[in-house]
Amino acid sequence: MQRIRIWSFSTLLKSKNLKSNTHTMASKPSIPKGTRDFSPIEVAKRQYIIQIIKSNFEKFGFQPIETPSFENSETLMGKYGEEGDRLIFKILNSGDYLAKANETHLENKDSTKLTASISEKALRYDLTVPFARYVVQHQNDIEFPFKRYQIQPVWRADRPQKGRFREFFQCDADVVGSKSLWQEVELVQLYDTVFTALGLAGVTIKINNRKILSGIAEVIGASDKLIDFTVALDKLDKIGEDGVKKEMMEKGISDEAILKVQPLFNFTGTISEKINQLSVLLADSQEGMKGVEELRFICDNVTELGLSTAILDLDVTLARGLNYYTGAIFEVAPPKSVSMGSIGGGGRYDDLTGIFGLKNMSGVGISFGLDRIYLVVEELNLFPETVTATSKALFINYGEAGAFYAMKAIKELRNSNIKVELYPDNTKVAKQFQHADKRGIPFAVIVGEQEMASNTFLLKNLVTGEQLSLDFESLKQSLLES
Amino acid sequence: MQRIRIWSFSTLLKSKNLKSNTHTMASKPSIPKGTRDFSPIEVAKRQYIIQIIKSNFEKFGFQPIETPSFENSETLMGKYGEEGDRLIFKILNSGDYLAKANETHLENKDSTKLTASISEKALRYDLTVPFARYVVQHQNDIEFPFKRYQIQPVWRADRPQKGRFREFFQCDADVVGSKSLWQEVELVQLYDTVFTALGLAGVTIKINNRKILSGIAEVIGASDKLIDFTVALDKLDKIGEDGVKKEMMEKGISDEAILKVQPLFNFTGTISEKINQLSVLLADSQEGMKGVEELRFICDNVTELGLSTAILDLDVTLARGLNYYTGAIFEVAPPKSVSMGSIGGGGRYDDLTGIFGLKNMSGVGISFGLDRIYLVVEELNLFPETVTATSKALFINYGEAGAFYAMKAIKELRNSNIKVELYPDNTKVAKQFQHADKRGIPFAVIVGEQEMASNTFLLKNLVTGEQLSLDFESLKQSLLES
Repeated sequence: MQRIRIWSFSTLLKSKNLKSNTHTMASKPSIPKGTRDFSPIEVAKRQYIIQIIKSNFEKFGFQPIETPSFENSETLMGKYGEEGDRLIFKILNSGDYLAKANETHLENKDSTKLTASISEKALRYDLTVPFARYVVQHQNDIEFPFKRYQIQPVWRADRPQKGRFREFFQCDADVVGSKSLWQEVELVQLYDTVFTALGLAGVTIKINNRKILSGIAEVIGASDKLIDFTVALDKLDKIGEDGVKKEMMEKGISDEAILKVQPLFNFTGTISEKINQLSVLLADSQEGMKGVEELRFICDNVTELGLSTAILDLDVTLARGLNYYTGAIFEVAPPKSVSMGSIGGGGRYDDLTGIFGLKNMSGVGISFGLDRIYLVVEELNLFPETVTATSKALFINYGEAGAFYAMKAIKELRNSNIKVELYPDNTKVAKQFQHADKRGIPFAVIVGEQEMASNTFLLKNLVTGEQLSLDFESLKQSLLES
Repeated sequence: MQRIRIWSFSTLLKSKNLKSNTHTMASKPSIPKGTRDFSPIEVAKRQYIIQIIKSNFEKFGFQPIETPSFENSETLMGKYGEEGDRLIFKILNSGDYLAKANETHLENKDSTKLTASISEKALRYDLTVPFARYVVQHQNDIEFPFKRYQIQPVWRADRPQKGRFREFFQCDADVVGSKSLWQEVELVQLYDTVFTALGLAGVTIKINNRKILSGIAEVIGASDKLIDFTVALDKLDKIGEDGVKKEMMEKGISDEAILKVQPLFNFTGTISEKINQLSVLLADSQEGMKGVEELRFICDNVTELGLSTAILDLDVTLARGLNYYTGAIFEVAPPKSVSMGSIGGGGRYDDLTGIFGLKNMSGVGISFGLDRIYLVVEELNLFPETVTATSKALFINYGEAGAFYAMKAIKELRNSNIKVELYPDNTKVAKQFQHADKRGIPFAVIVGEQEMASNTFLLKNLVTGEQLSLDFESLKQSLLES
């Protein structure tokens, strides 16, 4: 198996490389900034969250796909704007890449323009564009509506900062091939179900609709001011009505326009009441009223069906992904006791696959922010203790005969799905107990001359210090029940 | 949550990029050669194998770690020989990378030499070197002996061919910080346990020892001929004793040397008998005899403890990873009915972390070849049917009232962990049934006027055609039991 642990024969003959390299690596090794090593306990906690997300995706009928870590550059470039293009990690062509490099750009030392001629592949920047590419490429094999989920890492050459990494996981669930609003209803339920399962009661699922925003843009009479408008309105809690209006005017939104949307400065009540206010405000906007109708369907049904622990809220300042969402927009805020940005988001996009030539393929999806969810679950102390379960017992090693006796028992215990280990070396007993302690292993099993002679095992509870002499079956029962 | 589905406001303003790009992407999109998309059924099957490997790693006391997909180039370069250096995927520096490019190499158009000045990071080539880097970097936080497992993708710019990919998963379990041979014993058991759990009875776990090979090199009096020697000897079955001897002589191995190792041409019997033959053959080689002693300990204990379905075999031609293994060498061959290369391999290396400045850290580990194991399990038809389980039932959509009635039931069923779905659109019933069929969903639930009036559900078995009118509790029971 050359592919595993490859050190081929050709390598052997050049093994001096290895030695000469030792010198240059004298300093302690490190990893690229913005990346992370995950220790066993961190992997276990991340897996715990991923497993809950995954099992609920499946319970809701979503099926997993996986796409390659790198895509052809043309698949990714131009899909995320200029900023995105800059943040995409490009992979250098293999071999003599300069042979095909563009001469002009090379002479001009134009890095940006040269890239296309020396790099054909790039690391995935998100899961949405690869998914669109997947749907178009495999359209003849896919049964639509297609409910897919995807949990994989993505890479961005962003400036690393607290909570922002250059490699991080996205957890996405999308449905393509149906415009039914029942899917929006289900996605809200899916958020509720996952966060409830994680013990995160009281998350707020904010909902808005692109068509509502278009309607507001119509009312204020300036679609190019829509972002300025929502950004200002979003500060209502912080800077008050007068502050918001001042900011809006500074951004060139007219007095008259601000007057027209006066109800938004006092936008309170139940979702149903809010929707009624919007239907008055947007009465003259055909698109706005379509948004009201969609919101009403989704919110009414979610309310009727009920949520376990999440709160649904209508937030007209929610404008995420404005340039590609066409209907519902979602964002999830953590429980109010935690100070943290959103832990999930998504929405409907009517033409996701159009960029790859497949028209009229409506989609709607949501995403879970693994890293932030991790921090929230950690902060609220909601990881179950069992998440980091190590071995149940460490067999103490007193030498070859005892170790063999132990290994026979270990083999049987593992056959009964009990995690147990032998300390590999016949070293000081104190050191072995210390090892169990540091690893968080709750029991030690001691096998001395006496135990071997009587075919027993001494089981020691490392928390209470209690010791029991047991035959194999009792040992097994004790470990199973502990 | 900017990090999820990022389409920032700045992007919005440049959304024309998206449109202009539509032209260039008119042809059907594709993925880079040597990479793969995994469909839902393929992901499910891969996950099935990974889950079995993972749970047994944990049962044997191994703990998971994860390392970043890319490492600093200096961590990887020079560790896999010149060939390896060529096959490592390099990541182009972000921003104006040409500004820092080496002028001389740029002028000379020397791609190989230029790389270091325009690329600081590279994709992981295997899991072993990153693990060594991890151990050295986190040595103060690690409790040794450290049993870690790691299941992550690696990347190689190899020429793609059947069964060889540019992105593939490695599944490694290693112990560092102990020289105890009990670990070799356990690793053989781990192979046996995993392959037994996969239903792959009759794999052959081949074992050899680097010290045996050194002993043979001493006996033939030419360590530089050792590879030629083992390669030729490995052909014994194919070209016979005379053929092998001819090849050896052609490679410059003397008649006299060949005569000395004559027993290897008739190397049969039980492992124990083979070891006895070796102990005669290598009697004058101190290192060879150390190898014999190690082999004997491992094989005797494995034999005494017993294997479930695997066969342990001593193969003196096994020379994989010769330049860094220092003790045991393992390789696993699939059941004899399948024609395929090795599906696992590993061994002991006494100085893995030395390259990063941490001396005397002995390690031993094994690897599972996921892609090949997948092919073998597929060929032998050993994937359980449940592996691809989709939803249990599809609720047929007859319009808004019925859909709401269905959604209430769906919510309750999901609370009981039953996977069910509503067909999202109120479309032709035949099309909905077809959807269930294509998705492999075994039941349909029909909710018409009559059912709503009587508070019942019509459950249709899509295989037998049988229909039952049931109240909610009976529906739930039927789906739970089916």
